[in-house]
Amino acid sequence: MTIQMPEPDVSVLARRDEIIAALREIVPGEGVISSAAEMVPYESDGLMAYRQPPMVVVLPSTTKQVSQVLKYCHANGIRVVPRGAGTSLSGGALPLADGVLLGLGKFKRIREIDFDNRAVVVEPGVTNLAITQAVEHAGFYYAPDPSSQIACTIGGNIAENSGGVHCLKYGMTTNNVLGCEIVLITGEIIKIGGKCTESAGYDLMGVITGSEGLLGVVTEVTVRILRKPETARALMVGFTEIEAAGRCVAEIIGAGIIPGGMEMMDKPAIHAAEAFVHAGYPLDVEALLIIELDGPGVEVDELIARVETIAQRCGSTTCQISTSEQQRLLFWAGRKAAFPAVGRISPDYLCMDGTIPRGKLPEALARIRQLSEKYQLGVANVFHAGDGNLHPLILYDANKPGETDRAEAFGADILRVCVELGGVLTGEHGVGIEKRDLMPEMFSEIDLMQQQRLKCAFDADGLLNPGKVFPTLHRCAELGRLHVRGGKLPFADISRF
Amino acid sequence: MTIQMPEPDVSVLARRDEIIAALREIVPGEGVISSAAEMVPYESDGLMAYRQPPMVVVLPSTTKQVSQVLKYCHANGIRVVPRGAGTSLSGGALPLADGVLLGLGKFKRIREIDFDNRAVVVEPGVTNLAITQAVEHAGFYYAPDPSSQIACTIGGNIAENSGGVHCLKYGMTTNNVLGCEIVLITGEIIKIGGKCTESAGYDLMGVITGSEGLLGVVTEVTVRILRKPETARALMVGFTEIEAAGRCVAEIIGAGIIPGGMEMMDKPAIHAAEAFVHAGYPLDVEALLIIELDGPGVEVDELIARVETIAQRCGSTTCQISTSEQQRLLFWAGRKAAFPAVGRISPDYLCMDGTIPRGKLPEALARIRQLSEKYQLGVANVFHAGDGNLHPLILYDANKPGETDRAEAFGADILRVCVELGGVLTGEHGVGIEKRDLMPEMFSEIDLMQQQRLKCAFDADGLLNPGKVFPTLHRCAELGRLHVRGGKLPFADISRF
Repeated sequence: MTIQMPEPDVSVLARRDEIIAALREIVPGEGVISSAAEMVPYESDGLMAYRQPPMVVVLPSTTKQVSQVLKYCHANGIRVVPRGAGTSLSGGALPLADGVLLGLGKFKRIREIDFDNRAVVVEPGVTNLAITQAVEHAGFYYAPDPSSQIACTIGGNIAENSGGVHCLKYGMTTNNVLGCEIVLITGEIIKIGGKCTESAGYDLMGVITGSEGLLGVVTEVTVRILRKPETARALMVGFTEIEAAGRCVAEIIGAGIIPGGMEMMDKPAIHAAEAFVHAGYPLDVEALLIIELDGPGVEVDELIARVETIAQRCGSTTCQISTSEQQRLLFWAGRKAAFPAVGRISPDYLCMDGTIPRGKLPEALARIRQLSEKYQLGVANVFHAGDGNLHPLILYDANKPGETDRAEAFGADILRVCVELGGVLTGEHGVGIEKRDLMPEMFSEIDLMQQQRLKCAFDADGLLNPGKVFPTLHRCAELGRLHVRGGKLPFADISRF
Repeated sequence: MTIQMPEPDVSVLARRDEIIAALREIVPGEGVISSAAEMVPYESDGLMAYRQPPMVVVLPSTTKQVSQVLKYCHANGIRVVPRGAGTSLSGGALPLADGVLLGLGKFKRIREIDFDNRAVVVEPGVTNLAITQAVEHAGFYYAPDPSSQIACTIGGNIAENSGGVHCLKYGMTTNNVLGCEIVLITGEIIKIGGKCTESAGYDLMGVITGSEGLLGVVTEVTVRILRKPETARALMVGFTEIEAAGRCVAEIIGAGIIPGGMEMMDKPAIHAAEAFVHAGYPLDVEALLIIELDGPGVEVDELIARVETIAQRCGSTTCQISTSEQQRLLFWAGRKAAFPAVGRISPDYLCMDGTIPRGKLPEALARIRQLSEKYQLGVANVFHAGDGNLHPLILYDANKPGETDRAEAFGADILRVCVELGGVLTGEHGVGIEKRDLMPEMFSEIDLMQQQRLKCAFDADGLLNPGKVFPTLHRCAELGRLHVRGGKLPFADISRF
């Protein structure tokens, strides 16, 4: 299988030495990497099936350097791919053969902790977890918690609008970022938002969050921190019918209860996780819900009782309630290790990421089971049930001829089902290159043109991360602007590694 | 005092009869209003100091008609001002002499109530309160509750990103809108979002919300509804020092408690409200906090006890806790009637709307008191204390020479103080024409240019609501595009009525 990427600009490639020299002027010392061997770590992100060495890697350490690099690239028509920690699962940080890979790894400083306004100002290369670690001594934390939180950076979280098991109650990245500093492709620096949640003018923070590196490069971020809940306890509830588990999720939300996290696993996922971490999961159920309630102790006690009653009414067959912090963490350990656990039972797996309206959960699961039979491939379902964000893991063996293509076709069909049921192609992993060519399943041509007009408002020459998100690259001129650019931008093929 | 508006296009005015006839073709019957007398109700919005009759009023009733009207205006270079119920306080719906006033008042249908997905699909002319009324029989409600909720429409709420006393806990409009249908100035119709909270592509919903009618015309809205909390109770806490009340607000939030509403009034506001509605407010205090806790009964009881303890520690001198629903509503009655109450004690008042980081509350209040002395004008402070959204009401008498200008200068200084303290020019009333010329206090020229590039991505000819939000109108061509448009767009003066 191949993915089409923008055709390399030979005139840029011909000037490679000159470009590297110019970049070294801006970022001296070890900030420019150009040898093939040293560039290998930057060839792919978490979607490792696709690889491409960049023309050169630049690792600036100040906003001024970022501004100068972008200004230089803009003046010289050089494409730029921004990169955080490279944990993206949709290929958003895949380099371009003729592009500068702009790594933000040196932006590691926590600039300000402001408890009075519950805000922390950090550089984009600070990891998600490091923010919580910097404030937990005072009883605070940063809410979004993607599985990769030890490694992934806040800059990457903004690019992908990352979620996590707690986003049901506390929101995605977009709900927890108050402001940022962003460098445009022209080198201009703009400030968006601040420590207040309101803002005058257009909501640029919302546009930047989830924009997958196509609009600008974030060089500073102000996030909201929350006080750690007084108590957190979890229930582990088993069901012999997966539809009953889906009903239970709907009824809990319908009762006005918003758990801190509400995750579902199906039988294959339960068995794989249990064999891996021995969390004490029941093995005779078809679906397992892990439901965490947090808040003041007295509230948590009451909510646990109500959730237990709802679960029983929905036909749960097992229910365990954590009585210690250690046990709560054990309940979660299986869920958090579900991906590597599935990796142990299948030579390869493909992790999908789609969203459906919560009410359609049982229907979506039934459709995925039908597809599993059609494609003759196993599937393990692990997902953020509370907000309808599915993560089906398609099991296959890349060494068996045709299985990889079948797995990818199966995955695409799952995303089509999500859209058909009124859902979305992606929940928290972004579009990148993985789901780029499925965008027309969800958006009309008019919708996509309007999205690209917005892109043109930030990057009229299409130099920032081209080939990602949009299936067809329109030049801004074609979108109703008379802006003229020399080179055309057709797609070239990149084979899967 | 005058405000500069785009100079009327004489070539459009010369074709008025022809334009009206064309619009009647699109919207037959009573959908086009062109007589001077009948257009009077459309001459201003809630910022009644400024008035301007439009060229013609059009009241379409279908998305198709909106699309055809905009397509016609786009093809003919005619400016368009969209309007909901006209309750805006910043002049966002002020007509243009050469513009079509596009009223959405006929879009009054609730299209779908989907309890399973907690979503309601409505037309933009449905009032804010009507959404709650349509779902309250099942125990649900729509959270944002601006004071004007009986009259203001959901379309207008999106344009202004409206808040209300409950937005501290439940978010502003932007946090409660899931999707919309929008007609671009070209007549093209796009769908944004849906019933899921996640979305692929750019967050256009975020950009549209708060865009004050400059990007497109909303013709359908999908909102999130919430289950009504089991219990709600309020505390009324008095302080003899306004700084102590500010500290109390900060400590409540710092303790991890997010009240359903937390409002503050200062002495002039307390006295005016008490004289008007007899809510039982203490008259010997300098500041009064009304704090509402909602949720399960057992949680509310505990939180009330904690808030009471915090208030005492901060030096409260009076504290009353509602023991019945009737009493809770009485506590709120004074606050909700504060604006008309202040209207009874002063011939005129100017309602400001600015935001500061919560931690700066005492400082902001001290600065406003200094300004009050400087300008020799009284001020009553009523505000959403929990989220730092100030509503100082400047008291003046328009019949006394110079007082109006002094009040406006005082108001502008208050907003400058907000920005200086790290806050924002507006909280929930929008920029419109009222705060347009103050935008450079908050944004750099680069910021404003980028905001206008985004505007150009939606409306390259600047036909939608020009003269609002941005202090200087740049043609898209000047913003780095080569798009060429015939007419220039300088400003002409409109005198305050």
